[in-house]
Parts: sequence; structure tokens; C-alpha cells
Amino acid sequence: MTNPAISLPDEFVDFLTQNAGRFEEELIQWLRIASISSDSSAKEDVHKAAQWVKNKFEAAGLKTESIPTAGFPLIYAETPLPEPVDGKTPPVALVYGHYDVQPPEPLDLWTSPPFEPVIRDGKIFARGATDDKGQVLTHVLAVCEWIGSGRTLPVQIKFLIEGEEEVGSANLEEHLPRLSETLACDVVVVSDSSQYGPGRPAITCGLRGIATYELFVDGPSHDLHSGSFGGAVMNPAIALCQMLSSMIEPDGRIAVEGFYDDVLPIPEIEREAWKQLGSDDEEFARSVGANALAGEPGYTTDERRWARPSFDINGLTSGHQGEGVKTVLPAKASAKFSHRLVPNQDPIAITQKLRDHFTRHCPTGVKFELKPDHGAGAMLADATSPYTRAAVTAVETAFGVAPVMIREGGSIPILARFQEVLECDVLLLGWGQNDDAAHSPNEKFSLEDFHRGIHASAALWQEMGRV
Amino acid sequence: MTNPAISLPDEFVDFLTQNAGRFEEELIQWLRIASISSDSSAKEDVHKAAQWVKNKFEAAGLKTESIPTAGFPLIYAETPLPEPVDGKTPPVALVYGHYDVQPPEPLDLWTSPPFEPVIRDGKIFARGATDDKGQVLTHVLAVCEWIGSGRTLPVQIKFLIEGEEEVGSANLEEHLPRLSETLACDVVVVSDSSQYGPGRPAITCGLRGIATYELFVDGPSHDLHSGSFGGAVMNPAIALCQMLSSMIEPDGRIAVEGFYDDVLPIPEIEREAWKQLGSDDEEFARSVGANALAGEPGYTTDERRWARPSFDINGLTSGHQGEGVKTVLPAKASAKFSHRLVPNQDPIAITQKLRDHFTRHCPTGVKFELKPDHGAGAMLADATSPYTRAAVTAVETAFGVAPVMIREGGSIPILARFQEVLECDVLLLGWGQNDDAAHSPNEKFSLEDFHRGIHASAALWQEMGRV
Repeated sequence: MTNPAISLPDEFVDFLTQNAGRFEEELIQWLRIASISSDSSAKEDVHKAAQWVKNKFEAAGLKTESIPTAGFPLIYAETPLPEPVDGKTPPVALVYGHYDVQPPEPLDLWTSPPFEPVIRDGKIFARGATDDKGQVLTHVLAVCEWIGSGRTLPVQIKFLIEGEEEVGSANLEEHLPRLSETLACDVVVVSDSSQYGPGRPAITCGLRGIATYELFVDGPSHDLHSGSFGGAVMNPAIALCQMLSSMIEPDGRIAVEGFYDDVLPIPEIEREAWKQLGSDDEEFARSVGANALAGEPGYTTDERRWARPSFDINGLTSGHQGEGVKTVLPAKASAKFSHRLVPNQDPIAITQKLRDHFTRHCPTGVKFELKPDHGAGAMLADATSPYTRAAVTAVETAFGVAPVMIREGGSIPILARFQEVLECDVLLLGWGQNDDAAHSPNEKFSLEDFHRGIHASAALWQEMGRV
Repeated sequence: MTNPAISLPDEFVDFLTQNAGRFEEELIQWLRIASISSDSSAKEDVHKAAQWVKNKFEAAGLKTESIPTAGFPLIYAETPLPEPVDGKTPPVALVYGHYDVQPPEPLDLWTSPPFEPVIRDGKIFARGATDDKGQVLTHVLAVCEWIGSGRTLPVQIKFLIEGEEEVGSANLEEHLPRLSETLACDVVVVSDSSQYGPGRPAITCGLRGIATYELFVDGPSHDLHSGSFGGAVMNPAIALCQMLSSMIEPDGRIAVEGFYDDVLPIPEIEREAWKQLGSDDEEFARSVGANALAGEPGYTTDERRWARPSFDINGLTSGHQGEGVKTVLPAKASAKFSHRLVPNQDPIAITQKLRDHFTRHCPTGVKFELKPDHGAGAMLADATSPYTRAAVTAVETAFGVAPVMIREGGSIPILARFQEVLECDVLLLGWGQNDDAAHSPNEKFSLEDFHRGIHASAALWQEMGRV
């Protein structure tokens, strides 16, 4: 399927193939550093992981800078801006990624220790393998090796590798306006997501937004004896269940008044394209260990996951959770819940609708408090932009098959901020697989995908030079 | 208000008054023993508390026995059976109580240490003060002092003081049929409950039954990323909330099909009597720290608490309960819940109705498991029996005011078993107060109530001799 007309010069491809072992060694080195940004005892390692990638850029001769923040530094690097061609400034791409990782717990579920990378069946197992060290390294290697080989890049590449993606990117968000000139670009390139399936590379043209909350329900001032008071005093745990149930219709639609008001319908062209992907509900249910799927009526599984808003309870807490029976009427109950949002939904408006909803649905005898945590709008990329077209060619070059155009249901809130502040396009090129277990025990990354990613990255810069 | 015609001989009342200090000393001794039956490290103390009351009976010359069980011993004692009067065998009463106590946790909420009894404002503060050492000791003292003073009792008194009431009385229940001859009696007398209020002694003519459950809801085989899967995979925590909410109507009625089928209506005579008690909903809400009361329509607060079945969630557990946000779609969710049952409701039938209900209301995409823990029917005493009439007189003698006839919403499952196995009446004479904090920090017992209880106990045996 490879289109030789748009392939990279054979000699560079050969070079990448010959050096595959060394690239894997470098990935292993980086993965050994336990850069857990949420763990205050891991601070030194997080800085070490930052230094590792900074060294990498410097060794290749990129102009490199470590930008300090209140938390971990932003590692910035750039290649030279090529001379204008026919009076036209070549495109500028900003590769965004992160060197921090999720905590590895629960440790007892790992087959091999999370920070001692092991290769099994052509996959590398370690925390950070796919999220995001393995994926971002494909771009770091493609660019550094290209420059290192003495060639000139037809585009300017900037890198911004942060250390707090797993804890919300607050410091990057704060610094972003100030850095808008440094980071100015035509397109942000991110590899921190997944292919549609093995051997089915994808370009992700949209992400959902997010709004997270905690709902507290308070009843009596202290736990009561359910014998002496049950039936006469409102039970906050029952009230919580009623309030949460009231948010969703039995058929799966969200029942919060006005929740869908601002939702943009999914363009027919995308719905049609997704139907061709051949998603199989039974197979999908099996893959997550559920006995069946369920969701909003009138939409397919991919539509529900990628382009329709959702409601999930993330945690429930009330009363006696230990062993055995304690017939208590608990004083309070609480839930953590979240919505995934779709284009045109505003997390602040959603918070107001929720407050109104709970005010209407809070039973007599209890009080509620709704605490918003964080919110971010959805992100849509321009699927028809020249950068996307360049990416399609590059991915086909490396993977031997044209990518499918999909969306993903997760959220990378900083991308919408990039779009706003840098007024740029976004290109989401996931080299991972859905079962790579990002955030879970036994996280892995296929080495074949790793090498194809490096190849695709190199091809992308070449293709982008023709834009 | 005291009716001198039915008072105890003045000299015995004087004797009780003169010895009040010694009685308090004895109570303090017993309360010092940390007989926590659920704490395996407290075994020695539980045995010590059993031995303490056994010594008390033996010192007074009662025929005493420690009946071993698989757990803690049953302490049995009896006074001699009096000679028949006019060819009529005098009545036999069995005093039931317990020498074990609840765990004292949370310790930091105690003003003084739970096993170092302290008297403040005429109240003794210690774990077990009201539940049940202080209350059962009133009968132990009345009988032992009576016998010890060389008098003859007009009735036979048997004592059964167990050490596992706070952990479910399983061993007593197992031994009960075998002990039916030893324990044979006309009436079981229990002081392990409360007065209607300060200075408002009560005879409790009914208790609710109980049925406790754990409900497990399972969805995917492991926690999922709410971005990638939210909206397409049923969330077990949402399913749990829906299933629990489906058990109750918005107006407070229980919505489980057939739940009320077997419920006996509350006799009009009791409803009328309770209305005269002058319960104040606003005051009641304030006393528990709730902003309002709520419950089944058409019933008063006392009716809801004492004689209508109830549903309480005792605990909720799912997903992320720690600090901060984790946008997970949890693999499972569970709840502990319980029903208080009223006369004629059968816990086994209720379990079947719940199973049927959940089968109908379990959403697609999850499985449920309902695990019953324990169940017991409600208990009704005969409010018109000669023993109850004797108790009314005795209580009036000691408290200077006639007792009100009430029920309580809690459950003492062993009492219904006594009724069945021993074919006897039950007399529930609570000397405690609703705010005595049984099972909570700073448990207390009014010394005035303690001494009145001793007096009432002595008067009861005298009155019962006239039955």
C-alpha cells in the first residue's frame, strides 16, 4: 500500500531501521525514570525526566530552554526556521507532549515492575510506555536524528514537553499567554492517543470536553440509629441516589434540563464515515468485560463515545463501608461525577444547569452542595486542513495503510487553549492502541507502532514542507 | 402522684435510698470493665464482666450458673420458686439483659475515657452506662438487695445475662430451645430501651423487625477511562443509584412491589394514644440536626418511627473516594441497606420481593447480586396483660407519674424468639433517655433514672405477686 512517490528518501528510512535497537534503548532509559508528577516524593525523578529530554535536544543541536514554572519545568526546543521558499515562509509545527506519568498503583497487578521496562511479545511494558514518553519520543527521535544526520528540515519544529499533564497542566496554562510568541505555530502536533485498532492508524479530529464535580448531601448532624429514626428522618444516601438518578432517563438520555441545548449535531459526513469503521458492539462489550453495552438511544457506540455528551459517577461514599452490618442512618453522602462535553457545550453553563436541576430535585430534609472541580470545552480539529492532508500521506507512508478519521472521547483541555491562544490548527496522531492500559497496571506500547511512529513523524515534516 | 396504697414497704424504700451511693459504686465497678464483644483483643474483659455479675448473684445467695457457649457465657441465676398461694403457682419472670458493650470508637469524641466512668450533672458517662449495664443492674440490685435483706419474693425471678447482644445473640439463639425448661417463665422483662422523654417513663409495647442486605452491581471487568468509554458502557454506580432510587417513591412510600402486602395497620387506639404524647416535629428535627423531617405520607413521626416499615441506605461504596478527581467509570458499586419491618412482615418474603424488584429494575449492561445478612420479625407485647398492668403501677410508684404506652423503632430480635420458644409475654421497661447516646461517644445514664429503675424493679415484683 505504500506510495513510493511520497516516501522519505530511502537512505533515511534505512538509517531509522538500522538504528531501531538504539531508539528502543533510549526509550528504556527514559521509562526507567519514575517521573510521577502527583507524587511529592518523586520530585527529583520528575526533574530527571525533564533533564533527560532536554539533553536529547541539546545533543542534536536544537536551541533548547528549560522554562521554570511554579511546578515542573516546561522543556522547549526548536529547529531553525528554514529560508522562505518562493517568498513563502515554511510552516511551523509545535510538538506538544509530556514527560510526567501517572502513579503506577495498584502495584500488585503489574506483571513486571512499572519502572523496569521489559519487552514481551514485541511490546514494551512500563509506566509511561504509551502515555506519553513512548509516543512523544517518536517525534523527538525523528527530528533529532534528521538534524543529527546533517539534513535540513523543510519546516520549523518547536517542542513543548511539559511535566504536569497528568495533574492538569495548570502551570502551562498560566504561562501560555506569556509564551504565545515563542510557541507561535501553524499547527500543534500531539501523539498522546490511540489508533482505531491494531494496524488501523487514525487521525483524531475531535476530543470531548470535560466538567467534573463533587456533590455533597447533608442530613442530620450525626449518624443516627436506623431503628429509632428510620422512616422519619430523610436518609442523605437515599437523597443522593435520587438526585443522581434524576440526572438520567431510564433510556440513557441525560435528564438535566437544558443539558443538550448547545450541543452541535454530529455532521452527517462523520457519522457516515464512522459507520464504515465496522465497530462491533458485542466484541466491544467483550473487550471491556461487560455483558452488554448501553447508552443514549439513536446513536452508535462510536458516536456515544466520541461525539455525544456523557454522565459518569466516578465515586460514591456514604455511611458504613467496612465489613458486616451497621444499621446506621448516615449523616451525609457524597458523589464524584463528571460529564464529557461535546462541541459548543460550555462547562460553566452546565454547572448552572446542574445547580438548577439539583435545587429542583433535592428532597425535603437534606441540603446539597455542588462543587465544580475543573471544566474544559471540547476540541475540534480541521479535518480538511493542509496539515491534516499532509498527515494522511505521512501516516500512510509509515503504516502502509491510510489512516481513518475518528474522534476520541477523552479530553486534553490544553489543546483547546492552544487553539485559542496560538490561533493554530491541531493534529492528533495517536500511535497507541486502545488496550495499551494508559493509567492502568501493565501499561505497554507496541515497538512496531513505536518505530512506525518515528517513520511517520519524519514523513510528516517532509510532507508539511510541501504545504 | 405516688399512690401510697401500692408503695413498697417504706423501710425497703428507705434502705434503697440509704444505699444509693453503694449502688453507684457497684455500677462504676462494672462499667470499668471494657467488655467489647466484637473486639477479639477484649476477650478477657468480656469474661471478667460476666464473672462480675455472676459473683453478684452468688453473693446474694441466688442459684447461679455460667452456661458456656461457642462464644461468651450466658449467666443464669434464679430466686426460689415461692409456695403456691391459694393453690395458685406464683408468676415466674425472666429478666434478660447483656454484659457486653459496643466498641467505644471514635475515641477522640469522648469527653472522658469510655471505661473510666465519671459523674457529671447527675449523669454517669461511660460505655455501657445505659446499654445495658446500668439498666440491667437496676433489676440485679433490686432482687439481690431484696433477697439479701432476708425478705421473700412473691414471684420467682430468673436472670439471663448474655455477652453477645451487641454482636447478634447468635449463640443464645442457638442454645435457646435447649434451655427452654430452665428459662420457662410467664413474662420476659427487659430494660434496654428508653423513656419517652425526661420524667416521662414508658412501657414499650412493640419493636420493629429488621432485614439487612448488601447489593452489589458489577459492570465492566475493570475500571474504565470515562473519556474513552463514558456514554457507551453502563456505569455500575449509576445503575446502583437507579436501582436504590427505584425502591422509594418521591413521596417517601416504599416502591418495592408488594412490600406493604402483609403489613398490619396500626390499631386506632394506639394511634390515638400516641397523638396525645405531644410530639413536636420541629423540635424533633432540631434534636437530630436536620432542617426538616420527611417520611411516608399519612403518618405522624411517631407512627413512622415505631409502626411503619422503613428503608435506609446504611452505606454506599464505589470508585474513587480519595481526594481530588479521578474520571473513572468504576467496575463496580455496592450498597448496604436495611428495612425495619412491622408486625406480620416476614424478612424472607421481603427478600424475595426485593430480588423480583431488582430483576425488573436492573439496567442493561450490569449484573446485580443481593446478599441478605440477617432478618427478624417485629415484636408486639400484650399491652393489656396483667404483667403490663403490674408494670404500670410499679413504674408510677417509682417515677411518680404513670408511664405512657409506646413502641420503639429498633429491633431486639431475641425477644420474638423468647415469645416463640418460651410462649411468654414480654415487658419492655426502658429507664434510659433518647439522648443517652447508646452506641455513640459520651454514652450516659441519669443516676436519678438509675435509682428510680431499682425502685420500679422492686415495686414490679411486689405488684406481680398480686397478679
